[in-house]
Amino acid sequence: MEFTIRECEAKDCKDISRMIMELAVHLKLPEQVKVSRKELEQDGFSGQPFFKCLIVEVSDENKSRDGHTMVGYALYFYSYSTMKGKALYMEDLYIMPEFRGKGLGKALLKRVAQISREQRCKRLQFMVQDWNRPSLEFYLQHGAKDLTAAEGWHVLRFEGGALDTLAQAAPEN
Amino acid sequence: MEFTIRECEAKDCKDISRMIMELAVHLKLPEQVKVSRKELEQDGFSGQPFFKCLIVEVSDENKSRDGHTMVGYALYFYSYSTMKGKALYMEDLYIMPEFRGKGLGKALLKRVAQISREQRCKRLQFMVQDWNRPSLEFYLQHGAKDLTAAEGWHVLRFEGGALDTLAQAAPEN
Repeated sequence: MEFTIRECEAKDCKDISRMIMELAVHLKLPEQVKVSRKELEQDGFSGQPFFKCLIVEVSDENKSRDGHTMVGYALYFYSYSTMKGKALYMEDLYIMPEFRGKGLGKALLKRVAQISREQRCKRLQFMVQDWNRPSLEFYLQHGAKDLTAAEGWHVLRFEGGALDTLAQAAPEN
Repeated sequence: MEFTIRECEAKDCKDISRMIMELAVHLKLPEQVKVSRKELEQDGFSGQPFFKCLIVEVSDENKSRDGHTMVGYALYFYSYSTMKGKALYMEDLYIMPEFRGKGLGKALLKRVAQISREQRCKRLQFMVQDWNRPSLEFYLQHGAKDLTAAEGWHVLRFEGGALDTLAQAAPEN
C-alpha cells in the first residue's frame, strides 16, 4: 500500500485529535483524554509550539472503512539528557488497526529516527505498557532497549491534587 | 541551614557540570557522562535553550568540605501529553550528600512543582531506578505515583548503533 509521511499542519488537528482518542481507547484510558482539538492547534502550531507531529496519509482509494485518509501519526518533542545531551522523546506512535502489518508503523518509526539523527539527538526515547506485548515486541525487535527491565528505571509522576499539595507545602527545616 | 534557590545562569555551568558527574557516580553510571561544561552552556543558554535549571546556593560559612557553595540543582524541560497537555519533565534533582536531610531537596522539589503550576503544566514527571530506595521513598512520600508499579509503564530507548540502524533501515512492504 502506498502512503506518505509528512509534517502535521494545524488543519490536521481534527484527525490527530480523533486518533489520540482511538489510541487512548486502545490503551484502556479513554476517560483520561482532556486535550481538545483546539488546544492541540494552540499547543502545536502557535508562536511557541510544545510538540511536533508527523502524519501518515493514504490515497483516497485506500481510505479506511470510515472514510479516513489520515491513518497514523507520531507526536514528539525534544528532551535533554545531562549525560548525553539533546534527545528526542516520542510521546505517541499510532497506526489505525486496519492499516497495521503493512509497514506503515516501521516507516513512521524510521522517519522519527531519521529526524533524531538530523537534529543531532543522541537518543530516541518513549514508554510502552507491559501488557502491550505487540508494541513492546515491535520496538525490541527493531533494536530498542527496555530500560525498565535492564536497569530498573521507574516512571514517577506528580499530578492533580498531589502536585498542588507539593507546590503549597510548608518549608521543613 | 539557610539557602537560596535561583535560576541557573551560564556562569553556573562549571558547578552544574561538577554535580552532574557526582550524580552519575551516585547512579553508578559515571562513564556515561558525555556532556561537557561548554556543551551545557551552549545547550542551556544560547538562542534556543533545550533545558532550564535551578541551583541551590548556601552562604560561604556553610560551604562544603571541598569549598563549594553551589550544593544542588534541578534540571528540567517542558514536555507534552496528548491526553493532558503541557507537562514538566524533571531530568535531574540532586543535593550533595553532606547537605541532605536539611530540607534542601524538598524545597527544590517544591520550587519545581510551583514552576509546573505557574506554567500551567498538568504533570511533573521523572524517572528513578528501583535500587535507589531513598530517592523512591522521598518522592512517594511526597505524593508521587509510581507509574511503572501501578500501570506497568516501561521506558524504552534507541541509541547509538541501534538508532543509526533504524534510521537507515530499508522499507518493509
